[in-house]
Amino acid sequence: MKIEGRNSVFEALKSDSITVNSLMCEKGKSDSIISLARKSGVKVTFVDKKVLDKESTEGRHQGYIADVVEFEYCEVEDILNVSRQPFIVILDGINDPHNFGSIIRACECAGVDGIIIGKNRQVAVTDTVVRCSAGAVSHVKIARVTNVNNAIKQLKDNNVWVYALDMDGEEITAVNLKGAVAIVVGGEGNGVSQYARTLSDGIISLKLKGKVNSLNASVACGIALYEVVRQRG
Amino acid sequence: MKIEGRNSVFEALKSDSITVNSLMCEKGKSDSIISLARKSGVKVTFVDKKVLDKESTEGRHQGYIADVVEFEYCEVEDILNVSRQPFIVILDGINDPHNFGSIIRACECAGVDGIIIGKNRQVAVTDTVVRCSAGAVSHVKIARVTNVNNAIKQLKDNNVWVYALDMDGEEITAVNLKGAVAIVVGGEGNGVSQYARTLSDGIISLKLKGKVNSLNASVACGIALYEVVRQRG
Repeated sequence: MKIEGRNSVFEALKSDSITVNSLMCEKGKSDSIISLARKSGVKVTFVDKKVLDKESTEGRHQGYIADVVEFEYCEVEDILNVSRQPFIVILDGINDPHNFGSIIRACECAGVDGIIIGKNRQVAVTDTVVRCSAGAVSHVKIARVTNVNNAIKQLKDNNVWVYALDMDGEEITAVNLKGAVAIVVGGEGNGVSQYARTLSDGIISLKLKGKVNSLNASVACGIALYEVVRQRG
Repeated sequence: MKIEGRNSVFEALKSDSITVNSLMCEKGKSDSIISLARKSGVKVTFVDKKVLDKESTEGRHQGYIADVVEFEYCEVEDILNVSRQPFIVILDGINDPHNFGSIIRACECAGVDGIIIGKNRQVAVTDTVVRCSAGAVSHVKIARVTNVNNAIKQLKDNNVWVYALDMDGEEITAVNLKGAVAIVVGGEGNGVSQYARTLSDGIISLKLKGKVNSLNASVACGIALYEVVRQRG
């Protein structure tokens, strides 16, 4: 997999979970990214900007394209083992890689222990996701499961309270989210699936005061995560 | 200006501030959008999907492209007059139309009275912004000013407390945001400008618990807005 752009490459080099095979830089560059790559034993080659432009899939290489080993997903158990009061996000059908990347960023900032995503109706960790995560993907555990609903059951069996973030629920600020908690975030179009709603311990909603009342999935997720952060103090 | 996609066209038709000149639909469509357009006296034409594909700038027309009158900005005074305790967002250099659209959505949902944007270093209300706002742009007042810093002074003269959302400030949950309040949100790369920081009554920050600590601008804005919503109760 290719990772491009100053921030994403820098974070990939710093990450424990991503292995950088090689780094291609624009001729004339000489900075902390290159010294970090050399220190880590990564092979660095200097090429003309034209070569980078050709190699780039995003068109935003900023002079850096790294070749890395594919993203390594973890198991749900790995996430459960991080903390005695885990804070987990479950994504139920996020299709837009920009949204997924922004959600990973928000999770990293809010101190989420791990993200669980499904294999169906859900974008995987692609190059675009890595870039939109601004490098945060290197610091958050992500488990990819065949069936999100089974993962919800597994979390409940492990004493995690599972809340679906969706319409027509209890206002989030009125719900106690201080303990072991997982928040299910639905896709851009359809929200959380009916079955996942039923499985959850409760539905939590954001107060909507407008006429359109349609928040971007990553914005809604960020708001919910920071309500957990606020409650946990 | 062209607006495309089911939601955006529907919201434009419902809006008081956007005038739809004409609507181009895919042959065979017959639904509430078309009946609303006809009821509003908008000329509707039916064309082949190929024609829409060609007219589309976004590639997401979903069978609907409307020709509308350019977005009409308001004055700062119009926003100040909405409420005795106005809730205002000032954007100081948002360059990404997706972020701007998401911010408008979040503002609409949070009940913000108006948004103030600068003419420089800031994307205007373009087709992409309209689409990313999922129609919310039709329901939020937006003032476009020559100088954001002068607008901050004007708000302060009108007894609005202005807070810059940025790094190294007081934690937002500890700041009283219940009164007349404006939140300054900085651009994706550089945050709030130094001068706008100095002019503001205070700097408010989100608690960052990770290593990367970089939230998407629209996610950060959404979290801050909902902290205001929570405090106002």
